[in-house]
Amino acid sequence: MPEDNIYIYGRKPVEEALQSRPEKIEKIFVKDSLYSSFHKIKELASFNRIPVVKVPHQKLFDLVGKVNDQGIVALFSVIEYLDFFDWVVEVDLETKPCLFLLDGTEDPHNFGAILRTAAAAGIDGIIVPKHGQAPVNATVHKTSAGTAGRIPIIRVNNISQALTDLKSAGFWITALEADGEHTIWSMDYNRPLVFVIGNEGKGISAPTLKKCDITLSIPMTNQVESLNASVSAALIAYEWKRNKLS
Amino acid sequence: MPEDNIYIYGRKPVEEALQSRPEKIEKIFVKDSLYSSFHKIKELASFNRIPVVKVPHQKLFDLVGKVNDQGIVALFSVIEYLDFFDWVVEVDLETKPCLFLLDGTEDPHNFGAILRTAAAAGIDGIIVPKHGQAPVNATVHKTSAGTAGRIPIIRVNNISQALTDLKSAGFWITALEADGEHTIWSMDYNRPLVFVIGNEGKGISAPTLKKCDITLSIPMTNQVESLNASVSAALIAYEWKRNKLS
Repeated sequence: MPEDNIYIYGRKPVEEALQSRPEKIEKIFVKDSLYSSFHKIKELASFNRIPVVKVPHQKLFDLVGKVNDQGIVALFSVIEYLDFFDWVVEVDLETKPCLFLLDGTEDPHNFGAILRTAAAAGIDGIIVPKHGQAPVNATVHKTSAGTAGRIPIIRVNNISQALTDLKSAGFWITALEADGEHTIWSMDYNRPLVFVIGNEGKGISAPTLKKCDITLSIPMTNQVESLNASVSAALIAYEWKRNKLS
Repeated sequence: MPEDNIYIYGRKPVEEALQSRPEKIEKIFVKDSLYSSFHKIKELASFNRIPVVKVPHQKLFDLVGKVNDQGIVALFSVIEYLDFFDWVVEVDLETKPCLFLLDGTEDPHNFGAILRTAAAAGIDGIIVPKHGQAPVNATVHKTSAGTAGRIPIIRVNNISQALTDLKSAGFWITALEADGEHTIWSMDYNRPLVFVIGNEGKGISAPTLKKCDITLSIPMTNQVESLNASVSAALIAYEWKRNKLS
């Protein structure tokens, strides 16, 4: 396992972490033969929607080495996630902030590349759903070339509710679509914006698309129908940046 | 192995292919115990700089199934490569063509993403070195979302010589550099251009960089030092396209 992950082990430490800062726990590994004995931990994990996986003891050894792991290891997030409401009350709309909202990015390489480009372009934050989204694990961290910590990552329970709240707050919700009403070159970027980036295969989900105020397309030749998610995100981020600076 | 690869097998067919169309052969697999018996094939492969790899017989079976493979299988390219000189005599400089030159792109996912974006942006062709470059294999084909065949891929034996020839022909050689003399937004795109894309880890090699006429930077914030190769290529391709259309 990559060395920049943080693990805690042992029944009591994991239980305490689940009670005091569940948002920092990505995943819990338990020794298969002891799985049935972790009632309280499984309950707390389930309540906080943290996956608990059964593994052979060798796996725990690979993660934390020769320690008294008591059959349980928790993987901590290397990233400081922000709470949506904590973030939204602080935001200054006068600066015309721009956010990415990832609607289920599954590929950690894409996620890492998006974080890296967003940081480089000066995007104000990235909203990710708590579930159905690649966690900011070591692969994401590596692909982001260490930039993952330089841009706020804001987690939300429910994308649809977050979009409603963002619209009320004054943001314009924008999505890429093949036949969008604007192109990335004709779009008016001078307002608080949220760019929705869809899932690699399925695109943007129907309920999310319904909440969008603006649809945007990237002009394409040679009958190319779409671009890689991280490439699309980069083109939008840099058009936003170019417009902001000009 | 992916099903969209093409293989030929048997001593005679491989030998004939090596003589009649060596440019279409990506790689040759030979059964390890027979390796020393393929004198002529190894000589022809070496002359055409085609890698010959020793593999257990099971590997050949995995590639072509239960056939009389005679201990040898050749992987054919799924792509029609153009010869540099055939291409360069046909090119119309009045149209201000724009090329990508990949200076050793190793990651097939990056290569595929670059092909896809280049096709979408309408880049006129991609120059790749015959060696030290990910071949257009099934992974590249898949990542390119099937667009690999829609843009000319021009192979050269020697990058440095190709750059000299391109300069003589009237092209301006342009490379991304952290402290480039222009940004992607201030660059004059209205001329025949070659954009050099460096290797993911090592960047652009020193001899290639020496041949460059223009250095270009992508403005970045948050102390981000570089972007993913396919993202950088996309930003350049789309700035070129935006300038061309405006």
